[in-house]
Amino acid sequence: MEVLLMRFLQTADWHLGRKLHGFDLQAEQQAAFEQIEQIALTEKVDGIILAGDIYDRSLPAEQTVDLANQMLQRLNLTDHLPLYAIAGNHDSASRLATGTPWFSSTGFYLHTQLAEAFRPIELPDVQLFLLPYFEPFAAQQYFKDDSLQHLDQAMAAVIKKMKQQFAPNKKHLLVGHFFAAGSTQTASETQLTVGGLAAVPTDLLADFDYVALGHLHNRNALQAEKIRYSGSLLKFSLSEVQQKKGVLLLDTDTLQPEFREIKPLHDLHELTTEFTELLDPKFYRQQPRADFFGITLTDQKPIPNVLARLREIYPKIVALQRTADYGTLFDDQQQSQQFLQRDPLLILQDFYQQVANEELSRSQLSWAKKALQTVREESKA
Amino acid sequence: MEVLLMRFLQTADWHLGRKLHGFDLQAEQQAAFEQIEQIALTEKVDGIILAGDIYDRSLPAEQTVDLANQMLQRLNLTDHLPLYAIAGNHDSASRLATGTPWFSSTGFYLHTQLAEAFRPIELPDVQLFLLPYFEPFAAQQYFKDDSLQHLDQAMAAVIKKMKQQFAPNKKHLLVGHFFAAGSTQTASETQLTVGGLAAVPTDLLADFDYVALGHLHNRNALQAEKIRYSGSLLKFSLSEVQQKKGVLLLDTDTLQPEFREIKPLHDLHELTTEFTELLDPKFYRQQPRADFFGITLTDQKPIPNVLARLREIYPKIVALQRTADYGTLFDDQQQSQQFLQRDPLLILQDFYQQVANEELSRSQLSWAKKALQTVREESKA
Repeated sequence: MEVLLMRFLQTADWHLGRKLHGFDLQAEQQAAFEQIEQIALTEKVDGIILAGDIYDRSLPAEQTVDLANQMLQRLNLTDHLPLYAIAGNHDSASRLATGTPWFSSTGFYLHTQLAEAFRPIELPDVQLFLLPYFEPFAAQQYFKDDSLQHLDQAMAAVIKKMKQQFAPNKKHLLVGHFFAAGSTQTASETQLTVGGLAAVPTDLLADFDYVALGHLHNRNALQAEKIRYSGSLLKFSLSEVQQKKGVLLLDTDTLQPEFREIKPLHDLHELTTEFTELLDPKFYRQQPRADFFGITLTDQKPIPNVLARLREIYPKIVALQRTADYGTLFDDQQQSQQFLQRDPLLILQDFYQQVANEELSRSQLSWAKKALQTVREESKA
Repeated sequence: MEVLLMRFLQTADWHLGRKLHGFDLQAEQQAAFEQIEQIALTEKVDGIILAGDIYDRSLPAEQTVDLANQMLQRLNLTDHLPLYAIAGNHDSASRLATGTPWFSSTGFYLHTQLAEAFRPIELPDVQLFLLPYFEPFAAQQYFKDDSLQHLDQAMAAVIKKMKQQFAPNKKHLLVGHFFAAGSTQTASETQLTVGGLAAVPTDLLADFDYVALGHLHNRNALQAEKIRYSGSLLKFSLSEVQQKKGVLLLDTDTLQPEFREIKPLHDLHELTTEFTELLDPKFYRQQPRADFFGITLTDQKPIPNVLARLREIYPKIVALQRTADYGTLFDDQQQSQQFLQRDPLLILQDFYQQVANEELSRSQLSWAKKALQTVREESKA
């Protein structure tokens, strides 16, 4: 028997148009895209699997539409790479469907509707089932079966129908965009209904030789040999700060995906230290200050104008927090009790003194007294 | 010399997603589309010219995207009709550009950027220049010439460059979406800067054998033999109530377009009469009451709850106005003067009596007196 071999590059969750705490990521996404293209060309892949969430939102801005159009045209029309793509939950299936019937003429398959999932893409040694993100309601309509209330029920019906199309002499690959049971989530994914109803049990997927998934941004969220998330291209939250991002290379003979790292144009870091150290040239000259930072201050005292002062050194701070809050300002329970029993006006005077380096004026003091009096009366009422 | 002949259907200004004073027009647009398709197939046209404003807005709703996608797929992929289309000022060039590089494989040409206008579509006997809507700023950038401040200047540069591509043995057709000088506007088009700066003088277009235009909704807005608007598919305002809507059929040998009417699913009518007649079964049974109506009441007196009462008979009233206002309630200047000299409180009492069929109560009278007193004091102040 002839041995056929195809090589795919697996990616997902580009989330074009996404911002990181207000910072535009277009340049980051462009840089990551160029690395994907480079890997695809160097590794001579036979196609790119793009498992959903091309866009970050159903109504992308015009410049984001331009960016996505350029990327997809580049890969398919300039580089002549086949694309096997699906809509994710962040994409608008309707908007993404624009033009799709024309795309297959150049080997660009983009499925946006459940009904399209049951015509596999027939390749020499594999059948590729492209299953777009769908809600149980879509499966109810498609199968005319109101009992498909939850995702696991709907997915069982979908996979049963797919298996009827299985060609016996080929391998069977599924491309999907869902939460596979047993995986864990990070903060940058849209909150899902956890607890099984909105998750797909991995044993449902057992008849596929490989499942290429999008949806979760941590490529290690699921520990299953033949069911793999590529993860997102970029770090979208501080909870992903330790993750390496990248794509998977998959040969159809072994179906053992190999991870290829994508280096961020600007990485995301966490710093936990004191304010004075952050402003110390000996410290900050060691930092990649053009990158994104999440900063946690260990200081116990208030720091006036703290964010503006830090941004002079670290322009792209995406989050700023303190290890100390009023509950942890004191060493023990007794000190904390004493604090809470003090006159609020005295606490305010202390605070102002620390922040502004001067005493409250007579009129400020008078205003504060009146405000506190009002609060006391209202809390009695 | 061999005589070649092509036949085009010319249409424009579909404005998918548009509402008529709050009433959805999707069914109307679908019905009009089906007539276009029927004409195209019956007349065996060789292509459809779609001169811009496919969508009514740059950010169409998902269901409108579905509708447009279905229509364009139907014509090009099911009916195998070539499409020659451009973006209009209501379309988003970026969003409309999605997928366009793939479309030409099936003879669907959709130009959205000025730069695309200079590669004519080469047909046996004609060159078709597809010029999308553009702003002078785009021409400044394209030609690297800041002096192109106004549309006529920009268009002169565009046409000069197009003429460099003219093949001597072919006819030269231009498809555009702009306001040609000498034409008149109706209320349903977006307000334009009139006065020449934003209009294209027709003599600039003289070297084309035919110019197929979109933008103006009245197909007779411009009286020029070789420069023709097809007009919109539907009546979008009461000012268009007398217009016939439709498409043009154009043979490339004669270039004498022939109008084909599109019958509205529900037409738009104007009624000018008295309230009692509108509610008279002998009258309204003669009316196509499922249609859209603009109603002008000739009554001199107030009519309580007038719109709701009329909508019981005519559900799709898109506008309601009166021939009579306070200035025309009286036959002559003298009566009008007398009216204005009356005590406002007496006018109010009369009005309430007519509307509510009862006298003002004591407390209502007291409230009205106070309100009038306040107004008098404020107008003195």
